[in-house]
Amino acid sequence: MFFASDNTSGVPAPVMDALVRANDGFAAGYGNDTVTLSLRDRIRNLFDAPEAEVFLVTTGSAANALAIASHCPPWGAVFCHELAHINVDECGAPEFYTNGAKLVPLGGAQAKVAPETLADALARAGKGGVHQVQPGLLSLTNLTECGTRYSVTALNALCGLACDHRVPVHLDGARFANALVAEGCSPAEYSWQAGVDTLSLGGTKNGLMGVEAVVIFDPARAWEFQLRRKRGGHLLSKNRFLAAQMIAWLQDDLWLKLARHANAMAARLEDGLRQHPDARIVFERGGNMLFVQLPRAIHTRLQAAGAQYFLWPDHATLDGPQDVPVTGRLVTSWSTTESDVDAFLRALDVA
Amino acid sequence: MFFASDNTSGVPAPVMDALVRANDGFAAGYGNDTVTLSLRDRIRNLFDAPEAEVFLVTTGSAANALAIASHCPPWGAVFCHELAHINVDECGAPEFYTNGAKLVPLGGAQAKVAPETLADALARAGKGGVHQVQPGLLSLTNLTECGTRYSVTALNALCGLACDHRVPVHLDGARFANALVAEGCSPAEYSWQAGVDTLSLGGTKNGLMGVEAVVIFDPARAWEFQLRRKRGGHLLSKNRFLAAQMIAWLQDDLWLKLARHANAMAARLEDGLRQHPDARIVFERGGNMLFVQLPRAIHTRLQAAGAQYFLWPDHATLDGPQDVPVTGRLVTSWSTTESDVDAFLRALDVA
Amino acid sequence: MFFASDNTSGVPAPVMDALVRANDGFAAGYGNDTVTLSLRDRIRNLFDAPEAEVFLVTTGSAANALAIASHCPPWGAVFCHELAHINVDECGAPEFYTNGAKLVPLGGAQAKVAPETLADALARAGKGGVHQVQPGLLSLTNLTECGTRYSVTALNALCGLACDHRVPVHLDGARFANALVAEGCSPAEYSWQAGVDTLSLGGTKNGLMGVEAVVIFDPARAWEFQLRRKRGGHLLSKNRFLAAQMIAWLQDDLWLKLARHANAMAARLEDGLRQHPDARIVFERGGNMLFVQLPRAIHTRLQAAGAQYFLWPDHATLDGPQDVPVTGRLVTSWSTTESDVDAFLRALDVA
Amino acid sequence: MFFASDNTSGVPAPVMDALVRANDGFAAGYGNDTVTLSLRDRIRNLFDAPEAEVFLVTTGSAANALAIASHCPPWGAVFCHELAHINVDECGAPEFYTNGAKLVPLGGAQAKVAPETLADALARAGKGGVHQVQPGLLSLTNLTECGTRYSVTALNALCGLACDHRVPVHLDGARFANALVAEGCSPAEYSWQAGVDTLSLGGTKNGLMGVEAVVIFDPARAWEFQLRRKRGGHLLSKNRFLAAQMIAWLQDDLWLKLARHANAMAARLEDGLRQHPDARIVFERGGNMLFVQLPRAIHTRLQAAGAQYFLWPDHATLDGPQDVPVTGRLVTSWSTTESDVDAFLRALDVA
Repeated sequence: MFFASDNTSGVPAPVMDALVRANDGFAAGYGNDTVTLSLRDRIRNLFDAPEAEVFLVTTGSAANALAIASHCPPWGAVFCHELAHINVDECGAPEFYTNGAKLVPLGGAQAKVAPETLADALARAGKGGVHQVQPGLLSLTNLTECGTRYSVTALNALCGLACDHRVPVHLDGARFANALVAEGCSPAEYSWQAGVDTLSLGGTKNGLMGVEAVVIFDPARAWEFQLRRKRGGHLLSKNRFLAAQMIAWLQDDLWLKLARHANAMAARLEDGLRQHPDARIVFERGGNMLFVQLPRAIHTRLQAAGAQYFLWPDHATLDGPQDVPVTGRLVTSWSTTESDVDAFLRALDVA
Repeated sequence: MFFASDNTSGVPAPVMDALVRANDGFAAGYGNDTVTLSLRDRIRNLFDAPEAEVFLVTTGSAANALAIASHCPPWGAVFCHELAHINVDECGAPEFYTNGAKLVPLGGAQAKVAPETLADALARAGKGGVHQVQPGLLSLTNLTECGTRYSVTALNALCGLACDHRVPVHLDGARFANALVAEGCSPAEYSWQAGVDTLSLGGTKNGLMGVEAVVIFDPARAWEFQLRRKRGGHLLSKNRFLAAQMIAWLQDDLWLKLARHANAMAARLEDGLRQHPDARIVFERGGNMLFVQLPRAIHTRLQAAGAQYFLWPDHATLDGPQDVPVTGRLVTSWSTTESDVDAFLRALDVA
Repeated sequence: MFFASDNTSGVPAPVMDALVRANDGFAAGYGNDTVTLSLRDRIRNLFDAPEAEVFLVTTGSAANALAIASHCPPWGAVFCHELAHINVDECGAPEFYTNGAKLVPLGGAQAKVAPETLADALARAGKGGVHQVQPGLLSLTNLTECGTRYSVTALNALCGLACDHRVPVHLDGARFANALVAEGCSPAEYSWQAGVDTLSLGGTKNGLMGVEAVVIFDPARAWEFQLRRKRGGHLLSKNRFLAAQMIAWLQDDLWLKLARHANAMAARLEDGLRQHPDARIVFERGGNMLFVQLPRAIHTRLQAAGAQYFLWPDHATLDGPQDVPVTGRLVTSWSTTESDVDAFLRALDVA
Repeated sequence: MFFASDNTSGVPAPVMDALVRANDGFAAGYGNDTVTLSLRDRIRNLFDAPEAEVFLVTTGSAANALAIASHCPPWGAVFCHELAHINVDECGAPEFYTNGAKLVPLGGAQAKVAPETLADALARAGKGGVHQVQPGLLSLTNLTECGTRYSVTALNALCGLACDHRVPVHLDGARFANALVAEGCSPAEYSWQAGVDTLSLGGTKNGLMGVEAVVIFDPARAWEFQLRRKRGGHLLSKNRFLAAQMIAWLQDDLWLKLARHANAMAARLEDGLRQHPDARIVFERGGNMLFVQLPRAIHTRLQAAGAQYFLWPDHATLDGPQDVPVTGRLVTSWSTTESDVDAFLRALDVA
């Protein structure tokens, strides 16, 4: 009953097999190998973006921070939702990589930036001239931190506002696959066609060992990205082992299948939880994350039964009156099984 | 009718005289001169802080950013009011000098950080462990950006909370003198005795050409500050010309007299404005700043009559329906005259 | 005939097997798993350093830059050999991570910092007071960039000088294992007992996929390192896959066996090359790297025969008079075979 | 007998008078005043550069670091002489402002970068691709740190090399006036016409209180500079007091007269010293600095007689055998008098 995060899972067999196959003899270092080149071409095809550049790193924080720094100056305002991972969970990585850009946290229901909030922020930004940080970048997260999902329409609207102010858009796609299969659109529609300039395409949470691709749709930014990646210590000499994983993951739509499975497990969990009289689903489920309010006593019981998940937000606690509801954050993954879900629901007496 | 800012004023005669006197022959460079040493000793006496170190810079942004960086690591959270100058008007100087610390904007009525808001923020900060920025520093501003004033009691309460979490406190005292004379306490009571670790003691807005002292109450931080100052390009070779100004300013309580005058002019302005049926004073006046809501038509008339001041906030505008009230920000200074004030009030038909 | 770098090799079977085994079910993220904990304990034992902290990253540049930044302030001078990887081949990663520390390149024969050179540099450093960067850190590389090796005695002497000036010591051990087995001492003797404060313990060049351990002998520095690692985007969520590789590598002294093999292959290459009348070994071979001067014509012939290696330094070229000697840099690895070596020597007509 | 530095002097009467005049009433803040605008126009005329932008700061380190950062990316190599002020005496300010660019110290006789040395460095730079810092900027100093002077021809040659590699050129002109009057060319010939992209035009060492102008010949870089200046805390609110000083200094060629006087005093010193049998002039005098080798015993005697100057380099000392020659660095200024010089020479028994 591991629902703490999709990054507590391992990797599926085809990915491991690809690693074994990649471990054959010598290969040029630092991404100059044929496997890496081949991955780039696949992603270009997949996104219908023949000029996009693709670079691999091993963490989502690195992907985000490097992508942001390559599109935003040190005196830029980075507009993002106040709950965004880059704002809350990366220990200041974006500030570090940009050399001190300012994250401007925006409110918004369901962890989604509302167009009017963004419009206001853009309209005000930098109006004080040199005294203020300048409009720099819009960073959206999809799935959001609360597991909700931007529709293609919503994404277009937000990117359009940014574009009107000549502000580039970064998409933190740590769970891009989960959003994509739920939305049912194409990768292109869900990224550059909507106005996204650079995408952190997450692999780790969906079945890789620590592989994230940064897709840069404007190739003019690519060389700077490469220098920043090296300088950040994120250029792996044996890059083929990252690329091989991601190729296997893309092969035969495996990444989409894994994401669909994770989403289905979350749906099963949601269905069960909705049977429980004391459970309240907090956010609209957009993919493989579920936020559910339950009395502390029930969380205590679930955890005693072996369920692993975090309370939300970070400072929530099971200490205190046991009838008070607190929120649990349940994340399913490609490797979550129906029996995991059902065991959880049984512990809740709803299965 | 110059009410745009106290920094549009010049310097009083004793300061200019001191400059002339300081311009006599040769002096050791980089603050190793006797004038600089003498200033340090005066400030130590004034603050009853015999071990404090005192360093001069030429802007408030430099004073704030260097003081903050010397007390807060790159991964620190800098708690401040959302309207704080460091958050809004320094183009990211604190982020730059700290190498990417994160400013955590706190709400609070009257531009003052409320104790409960701070307590909450401190309680939550860094609870996510290594994923999050750590409690770093509390930066307060007194007078605040909205011209309100923390009482000694309020200052003690906020600093006490910070101290409980081992978080040092910076005080942005760009208008420290204005606050001090209004509060009627001693410099020590209004700084280190309340729990302030480092103070940006503003001279520029109160009669100097561009002189701000950073007072560091914990001498263990002083060497780092000096290196940061040099590295930031803020160590003047002819430092005596800064020190001489500030000595003249402290002499015979000139700085307090200047501040009292500025405050008195603001009070006169307030008294007059309160006579006007359409005027609404927006924030409690703590010193020499006044925020007043007036219909656009009246602002238009005042400005046509030659009154110079800014609307607030930055994005406010006189374009639009003329009966709608918008806020003007009026700042008086040591060189504001009664006739300036009265001319303004006459233009309003209240004098 | 792949002699371009030891990082063009793959990983040995036990490492791959360990990855497969680690891929079993769920594990806590971000290094809070039992595999990571177990690795830390092994390294503590191996280095006879029960309080050392051990953190994993995926590149040598990250290991170096993070280790350096955790031991040297922004205004520090980082003393290193002018040919050091950190100075020449990391695109400014140390400057980036330290927020602008200054690398002070020192000369020295055989790519080794000579004690007198270091003593001079330390004696002069920071003598100009606040105007100059301050003595910050000594970074040594062993094996050096030219494949030479510091003896235990030499290492002690250099670290001793640093210690006399209260300057901590970083050891870039990208090829630590190769040096260690050649020197025939213990890991402790070759690190902290000699005066090393922090070690980049390289795994990648000696059989791992991209795993480097930073060993911090002073645990007081560990928390800062962890924050810097996170902030740099170098904390992997599925950290177990890094730790598992390194555990397999340490198991039954595999790492030492791999290193001994690589060194033996370089020795075989050296023996052969010494037979050739036009070959001149440029640097004393300390482990698995060989720098050999040959006329351009011979390099051309070797490369035509399929030998892969770099000329040295970077700007050397095969264009120009073919009788002029230029230097080739040959690196062997755990996976270099005798037949690779012999094929190379045959192409040279010396085998 | 103050020969420690030209920055130990004060300011001439016309500069002080201008300050007094500028202190009249209110003026717009932050450089939006008419005095600042007027200065910009004068410098444009003076340099025959109608599109140049001009910004004021209060230290040479700030001028240099901001100018460099506005023309060189974080991953840039900054080529400069190994003795350059930016490399030796600014505590890492360029590294800080650029976010970690790497200063590449070049040798060269007489503290001047030799064309062949620069050509080599440019030819090698960045040849290792993404692993290395990229050619970023050439920074020259004129007068050099050793008081020598680049001829217009030499300056053209060096800038030409940089231009061939698309590397912009910064000129540290802390003593630009001293060089200019000695060379006898126009400001334009000695800057942009020779290929300089940005100039730190020093006022402080030649009679101002702490005023340096950064002249940016490519206006496309100006907005970035302004943001960096603000962010660095170097935008003074009462900027008129800086501008007024520099206007007075330019008026009626005062700056040139002051520089000529300083140079003449250095010439008088040199003439006298050349009479002394044990004196050896170390570097060709280019303006107002003199480096002279004398036995320690003579330095001791001079200093006992009240002569103030530094030994060179920083770590030189009067401790040790008194017959050993060490170098003294003598700097004259606009306020050095003939009687100062003659007193010095008398103490040497050569006048």
